Amino acid sequence: MEQYRAFSTEEAIAYAKELPDRFPSSASLHAEEIGDGNLNYVFRIKDSESGKSVIFKQALPYVRVVGGDWPLSLDRARIEALALKLAADACPGLVPEVYSFNQEQALIVMEDLHDHLILRKGLIAGKRYGNLSRDIGIYMARTLFYSSDLYMNPVEKKARQIQFHNPELCKITEDLVFTDPYWDAPSNNIPGEIRDFVEPFLWQDEALKREVAILKHAFVTKAQTLVHGDLHTGSVMVTDLGTKVIDPEFAYYGPIGFDVGAMLANLLLSYCAQPGHRVDSQQTVEYRSYLLQTIEEMWLYFEAEFRRLYETETTEPMAKTAGFYDWYIQQILQDAIGFAGCKMIRRIVGLAHVADIDTIANTEMRVAAQKQALAIGAALIKGRQQATGIDAILAIIDTAR
Amino acid sequence: MEQYRAFSTEEAIAYAKELPDRFPSSASLHAEEIGDGNLNYVFRIKDSESGKSVIFKQALPYVRVVGGDWPLSLDRARIEALALKLAADACPGLVPEVYSFNQEQALIVMEDLHDHLILRKGLIAGKRYGNLSRDIGIYMARTLFYSSDLYMNPVEKKARQIQFHNPELCKITEDLVFTDPYWDAPSNNIPGEIRDFVEPFLWQDEALKREVAILKHAFVTKAQTLVHGDLHTGSVMVTDLGTKVIDPEFAYYGPIGFDVGAMLANLLLSYCAQPGHRVDSQQTVEYRSYLLQTIEEMWLYFEAEFRRLYETETTEPMAKTAGFYDWYIQQILQDAIGFAGCKMIRRIVGLAHVADIDTIANTEMRVAAQKQALAIGAALIKGRQQATGIDAILAIIDTAR
Repeated sequence: MEQYRAFSTEEAIAYAKELPDRFPSSASLHAEEIGDGNLNYVFRIKDSESGKSVIFKQALPYVRVVGGDWPLSLDRARIEALALKLAADACPGLVPEVYSFNQEQALIVMEDLHDHLILRKGLIAGKRYGNLSRDIGIYMARTLFYSSDLYMNPVEKKARQIQFHNPELCKITEDLVFTDPYWDAPSNNIPGEIRDFVEPFLWQDEALKREVAILKHAFVTKAQTLVHGDLHTGSVMVTDLGTKVIDPEFAYYGPIGFDVGAMLANLLLSYCAQPGHRVDSQQTVEYRSYLLQTIEEMWLYFEAEFRRLYETETTEPMAKTAGFYDWYIQQILQDAIGFAGCKMIRRIVGLAHVADIDTIANTEMRVAAQKQALAIGAALIKGRQQATGIDAILAIIDTAR
Repeated sequence: MEQYRAFSTEEAIAYAKELPDRFPSSASLHAEEIGDGNLNYVFRIKDSESGKSVIFKQALPYVRVVGGDWPLSLDRARIEALALKLAADACPGLVPEVYSFNQEQALIVMEDLHDHLILRKGLIAGKRYGNLSRDIGIYMARTLFYSSDLYMNPVEKKARQIQFHNPELCKITEDLVFTDPYWDAPSNNIPGEIRDFVEPFLWQDEALKREVAILKHAFVTKAQTLVHGDLHTGSVMVTDLGTKVIDPEFAYYGPIGFDVGAMLANLLLSYCAQPGHRVDSQQTVEYRSYLLQTIEEMWLYFEAEFRRLYETETTEPMAKTAGFYDWYIQQILQDAIGFAGCKMIRRIVGLAHVADIDTIANTEMRVAAQKQALAIGAALIKGRQQATGIDAILAIIDTAR
């Protein structure tokens, strides 16, 4: 193995030429660095003769968006490759195919989803996806069930947990999601227009902060299953009919509700952003209705598939006790609602924002969306423990309007 | 390093002679295998000239009490040695000193506590220990605090969690404490006299089994801190004034309440056993009162020291939020009460019993103690979520009488 080096486009092409069975010998390869994330290089390597292409995802030894001052373990590439493989086994077709993985180069060679769009961009554009709620519900149910104690042999589960030892990326979440938004941290990125609102609303609300501290405690202690760890609408790629979940480099053993909550949060951020992207209030009302329906259906698909797996494939004998499932699914729901609140708030005042809201050109509309996201986020965090079904989210949104 | 071999007394002596600075060159060494546990060899190596002695604790590659049919990882010796070292740092004087550790031989060379008695034997004999509740309270508070997310850097905590990867010993607890007592498992050791009682009382009570399943879920997912993992009254050695906690080979990252609950359970098993060991009911009443006082004081010492550490040494910023501590200590208490119930029940019907009860010669008294332990255990499991203070245990005992 050669020593790690961050690839140039030329080095990416040279590496691609050596891949067995990937391109014909006559290939005329071109490489383009297309990464728009915060952490990695993403190259598209394309043969202009055959039209065939692949993606190279290479981890960088630092946080790309910040630079060399924030070093980050290359081991996350191994974690991502392994998580994608497990997800492919659990729900074939819902993740990109991994062709090969080079640990030394922290490089994943994988399927090019060139005909797919990042879901977040589709939502901003007001598109609708007929299979999205089903696909994501199924993806979550299957990936989250099959790595849990409900299904896995307990010794094998603990071995898998070690494979997904991911302390540096967990630390990013611990800081950026669960800590920094709740004080005047240098990492925060607080829009100037709402700074005066944030201090009393987030920093002086001890009841809110206490609930966030409890959710942070769950994030760091509740090793229920292998979670994706960063399941926002930028980690989902879509076509009109197809869905692929990408980028599980934050994968670790955590609470099941963390993934579910991340999806809820990002759909609700889109909900808040709608007036800034639609031409009139009628369009806003209609698309918001679609988003709330997507949330509801996604949960119902998730819950139905998770229940089916529980009923047919649970190996853990005590989990089969009457009433256990109801308890189990309810704590997933309540965790998910709480985590959703944390994820909404951090996307408004924390380091990393979402395009849904930041691209709203009209200042008044953008500020309204930001304040609404903070209000819904806080209400979800504080109201989660009364939730017994997904309709609780709709009620909480109502109170926060 | 030589290949692992289970020592004979002769091999133990030969090994002891090679230890630097342990015995004088003129030593006349004798070795005796004194292990009464289920898993290991314990040799006392003594110099009859100087009177100096040491303990060799050597893990066997199988469960001693069962034999070669139940293989068990030797890695538990490493875990025990490391846990003893961390405990010595956290609370000097409350664990035996480890002189050396030989990984290849799965051998710990440690302080001989020859003037100490196993606490369980002292309780059966009706002795009282003036410093016990304080020492155990302090031991639990300090060991459990310093390996938790309240205190540790999150990256270091996760690294320590991996050091205490202990799946085989966890599996023993998962099976023997949280699973087998709740069905007609071959591993169970159900006293013939209460067999007819057990089926309706444990196996047909779905509400009880559901709560046990929830507690088992906490045992396998709630990675709060490094717990001792087997903190019963056979893992504590005492003199009139001194206390040492031994045998942390089950150590792993689990719920704080698991250790606290194990102590509660074993003191309550002693409580149930009292009529079988005292000469009259007056003696029983008095010693039971002592035991309940010990439980109460142990919790109060634990809680006071844990609170002091929380207030002065917490590094986790979100945990400092107003109200978080009250939530945190309450979940420890409720977990502890629930785990205590599970640990009582398993000591009556599961594989490993306790001498407190099994040595009661009078059948009627022994059966009464067994049934009382099952009743208190079930009441603790079902009643834990209403507990807001240690006095809840006294109320639960009252209802189960």
